[in-house]
Amino acid sequence: MIVLFTDFGVSGPYLGQMHAVLARQAPGVPIIDLFNDLPSQDVRAAAYLLPAYAQGFPPDTVFVCVVDPGVGGSRRAVMLRAEHRWYVGPDNGLFHILARRASTTECYEIVWRPRGLSASFHGRDLFAPVAAMLAQGKRPEAVPAVLSPPTPAWPDDIAQVLYIDHFGNAITGLRASELPRHARLRAGREEVSYARTYSEVDPGQVFWYENANGLVEIAANQGRVNAFLGIAVGDVLGLL
Amino acid sequence: MIVLFTDFGVSGPYLGQMHAVLARQAPGVPIIDLFNDLPSQDVRAAAYLLPAYAQGFPPDTVFVCVVDPGVGGSRRAVMLRAEHRWYVGPDNGLFHILARRASTTECYEIVWRPRGLSASFHGRDLFAPVAAMLAQGKRPEAVPAVLSPPTPAWPDDIAQVLYIDHFGNAITGLRASELPRHARLRAGREEVSYARTYSEVDPGQVFWYENANGLVEIAANQGRVNAFLGIAVGDVLGLL
Amino acid sequence: MIVLFTDFGVSGPYLGQMHAVLARQAPGVPIIDLFNDLPSQDVRAAAYLLPAYAQGFPPDTVFVCVVDPGVGGSRRAVMLRAEHRWYVGPDNGLFHILARRASTTECYEIVWRPRGLSASFHGRDLFAPVAAMLAQGKRPEAVPAVLSPPTPAWPDDIAQVLYIDHFGNAITGLRASELPRHARLRAGREEVSYARTYSEVDPGQVFWYENANGLVEIAANQGRVNAFLGIAVGDVLGLL
Repeated sequence: MIVLFTDFGVSGPYLGQMHAVLARQAPGVPIIDLFNDLPSQDVRAAAYLLPAYAQGFPPDTVFVCVVDPGVGGSRRAVMLRAEHRWYVGPDNGLFHILARRASTTECYEIVWRPRGLSASFHGRDLFAPVAAMLAQGKRPEAVPAVLSPPTPAWPDDIAQVLYIDHFGNAITGLRASELPRHARLRAGREEVSYARTYSEVDPGQVFWYENANGLVEIAANQGRVNAFLGIAVGDVLGLL
Repeated sequence: MIVLFTDFGVSGPYLGQMHAVLARQAPGVPIIDLFNDLPSQDVRAAAYLLPAYAQGFPPDTVFVCVVDPGVGGSRRAVMLRAEHRWYVGPDNGLFHILARRASTTECYEIVWRPRGLSASFHGRDLFAPVAAMLAQGKRPEAVPAVLSPPTPAWPDDIAQVLYIDHFGNAITGLRASELPRHARLRAGREEVSYARTYSEVDPGQVFWYENANGLVEIAANQGRVNAFLGIAVGDVLGLL
Repeated sequence: MIVLFTDFGVSGPYLGQMHAVLARQAPGVPIIDLFNDLPSQDVRAAAYLLPAYAQGFPPDTVFVCVVDPGVGGSRRAVMLRAEHRWYVGPDNGLFHILARRASTTECYEIVWRPRGLSASFHGRDLFAPVAAMLAQGKRPEAVPAVLSPPTPAWPDDIAQVLYIDHFGNAITGLRASELPRHARLRAGREEVSYARTYSEVDPGQVFWYENANGLVEIAANQGRVNAFLGIAVGDVLGLL
């Protein structure tokens, strides 16, 4: 299984070109569009979302991860083996949190290059072909490497809104396992308490809960919490 | 064939997680994203759209239908056999219109539960696995049941805008077979007459027609009718 | 491989209905959503984008191309063989630029019609089934024809913004191979010079480059150029 995790957006020609390469070079391998409207060019936000949304995929899944503002410059291309899955993408911090939380990792710098590498679309020209190889048990030319750490260092979790979903819910960079249930969050104009799920609060009431991927998410029963609270991607939350 | 009919939106991580479950648990079965930006949490609108857009699918198609504001609460999970197709989703009225119009139906409450059912994402954890089983001719544990009827009762058709499409056209909850061709509709600022299709009216002219799925749709030749008329999802139409 | 190139948008029920027809009538053939939010009903813009984004697909790929404001009227349905690929769609100018640049073309008017052709959705009812036949080596009933030329005639390239992508970049109808690297473009408020890629300019700086499909594209390093310059789809560029 090959999984796409990018900031390409769901419209335009980029995802389709990725799929075309994968369908040709890894015929028969299912391709999953997991998350393709990650915050645009925000490597740090994507780095905290990746381990949450990569959970539950089978061994040998190959993730193609592209949030790559430095494409065409000097950043390296890497492939990472972590918890029996492959991750392919730029060495710009995108895999930093995932690797830090993994019990086992091996990292390689990708040496292989295609004929006709474009300056601006390594997702299509480099990362997708590498993913196709890995998904078929082949290995592109690569050398052992160490992921470049972000500077300054990143914390284990971030109390920040990383994504507003289609329902207006605010997904954060905090793992719910790290937050006691009695904790309250200051989000925009309000202080928000825990509830297990929507039906436990009154219509219109705002709450935080552990979402289906283990992250702290702020929601409202039958309403759009981003509008209620006036919050947006990037907003920092207070921990009370 | 497994068909998705949800209000998850086309961006974010939810559809991808559904696809990942289906690709693993029903390998080789085609998965179709039929309609995934149904009006958010509007069970009634989705209920009137479902029979129109489920037309034409082959026998044994399995529809996974998720518009589920009560997820995690007490509403039941059901699977419905109607006109030789399967429909899986919440028992909240979503299947009411479809079942009422079907010549044969059998309904079952789903008793089977996965290990690790999340409180907020039964689409991924419960409905998708059930759909995967049905698509492969397996039956999850289930007991005969009767769909819960909406209260107060719903009419056969609703003269209301249920969806504004990418071109600005207004799809309604009225079957064109129920409306005489000489009928006029009051929509926003105008009275709208019938035409067979775009090329039968002048550029910029507004008309209603029978769309390709049998519903009354309001459109304009070479223009965005929602802007022309100032209409939006939820607006009630006058029948003249 | 069957490739979709349409103005249907990525939401709503239209793409899903296309996929359902293709999955049934061409089982096992990969379906690629290449570009489905082409400028709405803008045949000319799509005509200049098509040859750029059709590059690199394997021989015998079948493109289903639908930007079809005249659907249901008198325009013909055609299938075009060009550079060993098939293109299916309306004869309204959509294939004009592609055919002009191709070394070999054969054009046919599609005579075959399905039972139950709707007045408004030939993509689903006519073009998708024809594409399914071609993808399986079958030929629908068709007669040799000549593409209708646009009047007045179209130029070889157009110095105009045809698409704003998810990152805010402006894709034009100019082939980069036709523009010397020292050329400057007037776009909105600024004059824009060439750079090879993002990392060659300072953060916030605007430049033009040859995008990964050979078109002149206007971008900014780490910023949304459409907002910087106040440009939008349809804007004409000055060549300096």
